[in-house]
Amino acid sequence: MDYDDAIKFTAGAPAEPLFPTAAMKQAYLDAMAQEGDHTFQYHTVAGPVELRERLAERAMSRMQIENVTAENVMLTAGGQQGIDLVAKALLNKGDAMVVEAPTYVGALSAFDMYEPTYFEVELQSDGLNVDQLEDTLKAHPEIKLLYTVADFHNPGGVTMSLAKRQRLVELANQYNFIILEDTPYRDLRYTGESLPSIKHFDTEGRVIFLSSFSKVLMPTLRTGWLVASTEIIDQLYKLKEAADLEVPNLTASAINQFLANNSLDEHIAKLNQEYRIRQQAMIEAIERELPDSATATKPEGGFFTWVTVDEAINTTDLLYNEATPNQHIAYVPSKNFYAYKDHTNGMRLNFTGLTPEQIADGMHRLGQLLKNAAELV
Amino acid sequence: MDYDDAIKFTAGAPAEPLFPTAAMKQAYLDAMAQEGDHTFQYHTVAGPVELRERLAERAMSRMQIENVTAENVMLTAGGQQGIDLVAKALLNKGDAMVVEAPTYVGALSAFDMYEPTYFEVELQSDGLNVDQLEDTLKAHPEIKLLYTVADFHNPGGVTMSLAKRQRLVELANQYNFIILEDTPYRDLRYTGESLPSIKHFDTEGRVIFLSSFSKVLMPTLRTGWLVASTEIIDQLYKLKEAADLEVPNLTASAINQFLANNSLDEHIAKLNQEYRIRQQAMIEAIERELPDSATATKPEGGFFTWVTVDEAINTTDLLYNEATPNQHIAYVPSKNFYAYKDHTNGMRLNFTGLTPEQIADGMHRLGQLLKNAAELV
Repeated sequence: MDYDDAIKFTAGAPAEPLFPTAAMKQAYLDAMAQEGDHTFQYHTVAGPVELRERLAERAMSRMQIENVTAENVMLTAGGQQGIDLVAKALLNKGDAMVVEAPTYVGALSAFDMYEPTYFEVELQSDGLNVDQLEDTLKAHPEIKLLYTVADFHNPGGVTMSLAKRQRLVELANQYNFIILEDTPYRDLRYTGESLPSIKHFDTEGRVIFLSSFSKVLMPTLRTGWLVASTEIIDQLYKLKEAADLEVPNLTASAINQFLANNSLDEHIAKLNQEYRIRQQAMIEAIERELPDSATATKPEGGFFTWVTVDEAINTTDLLYNEATPNQHIAYVPSKNFYAYKDHTNGMRLNFTGLTPEQIADGMHRLGQLLKNAAELV
Repeated sequence: MDYDDAIKFTAGAPAEPLFPTAAMKQAYLDAMAQEGDHTFQYHTVAGPVELRERLAERAMSRMQIENVTAENVMLTAGGQQGIDLVAKALLNKGDAMVVEAPTYVGALSAFDMYEPTYFEVELQSDGLNVDQLEDTLKAHPEIKLLYTVADFHNPGGVTMSLAKRQRLVELANQYNFIILEDTPYRDLRYTGESLPSIKHFDTEGRVIFLSSFSKVLMPTLRTGWLVASTEIIDQLYKLKEAADLEVPNLTASAINQFLANNSLDEHIAKLNQEYRIRQQAMIEAIERELPDSATATKPEGGFFTWVTVDEAINTTDLLYNEATPNQHIAYVPSKNFYAYKDHTNGMRLNFTGLTPEQIADGMHRLGQLLKNAAELV
């Protein structure tokens, strides 16, 4: 979209001006100085124990997970590799798994490779519909895995309630499945109170907690981390060795140096201060601009809100026929966020990559677009 | 092995003192300076086109591959990811493939994940036995993939002859299979003349040429690169996106800066100068120390020689019962280098990680060990 006044709600990337570039540059230099030539040698599939110890500490203090040691923490090539390796470990062709509807498109692309049978459970304003989940589990007790983004859902924008987190773990125990709790946005809360992770309620080692540095530090680090039982992690290490041999030591050491010499929480507080302004602008714009025929989720954190429009409107067609050429705005249409690509009246809007002025202007145009579209229905 | 006088022939890692540490540090700083904050953002699954253009150039000038553009070059997370993604693209459970006997253990661990049916073809002093391969292909025309390390074989130490490279491509055309040509050691030639790559003879886009920076620059870069048809690469990009989303831009940009401001060929010449001294020491020690009951390959490059001993000797038992406790030497026993783990009278010896004095001393001890063992047989 090459219009001078284009406004894109499509971003999934963090805002570059907020990157801790100078501190990370220093962290790379520190990592090289600390180990010299040896920095650049082969190391291990697990990566530096100091970094895993720091993350174990963080898992306990910030994610409310108990009894975490470095042996429970695994470093991955971004959150994406965490999803891929869990899928590879658990899914054979045709195996049953649950995804939220909608769900993260990158997770679907990882799962798709192993050709599972998907069961979709709808997303509600307080997280996935656990009653519908239980019905699904009763009908399909062969379900092995459930994937959820419980905090500031991508693309849904909603957060799973405390009660649902507890119930979800109870269902996992009762129906014998693994939960992959994907939390790339968990630290990015702008309003409301933080909830314990789903992993917090785990009593039988059934929850894999997955986080990433892509949104709170920088994407190019390509470093995610997960917390799981040592039994699961040992299995995942075998898969990682076969997939790409080991964690890149220089990168992991640089992150370790960054965390040793900077406060990640202070950096996150700075991110949240700026992103909160954009979140507020988005929430106000939703109330001001959207017609009654459209509903939007009100995110308390993360990157996205999700807009649902009249079922007669196909948001993919609307994007190409009206939104882009006439209003010069772009969003991500709903279709790709569903396992069966059968949902066509939703859209994902990013608000963290735009200024409050751009949000107000773009949402005004979206409001016009949806009013016009509703009249044609 | 904690003995003061221990000598380990086990290494698979390059010699750290030969790393271009200062130049690589500068390359990271240059990469950060060039793009600023944007260096650290998400980029693309393919990585910087400048680096792929340089590698396309190198593929043509150094690997004798014709008509290579940036679109034919794919960056991977080390050579290991190249092997894994090719396996994922081509192999379903039970599919037939050919490996050399012996072969690289890391390749077996990648292939194992996809549960192929292995057909082994023996390695000869001039590369794999192509007559045996043809017999295997006649009996099993369903074979889809062949994996080979043609230059300075790991673990075999041998190099495939020109005639066999040509014949191998002819067989691939005739019997409709893909060749994965893994070349991590190709640039590390100490004696003799370089041969054209197998890919050089490719007429139907059946050869995937795989290289890596781990042995000629540094392992922690975790960067391999492959040359293939755009059809194959497009398929591999989809798998890479699902596996780990994209190439780490900072790392790839640093390699690009290194190549822009340093001569990789001059660096390789320095490596070869030092490694040649160690190779000569190994070849002399083999002739001087090994009993007639043992044979060793004479590598012209790479990291390894392969010793075959009397069939009655189990090199795994010998390692733990005699070599380590009595002679204080270590090697990698043959068992793990075979798809069916059924070969027990070989060993892999590394010579690039030891000084000429260590090689002479260690090989003298190995000679004693094998003489004693032969007497007991």
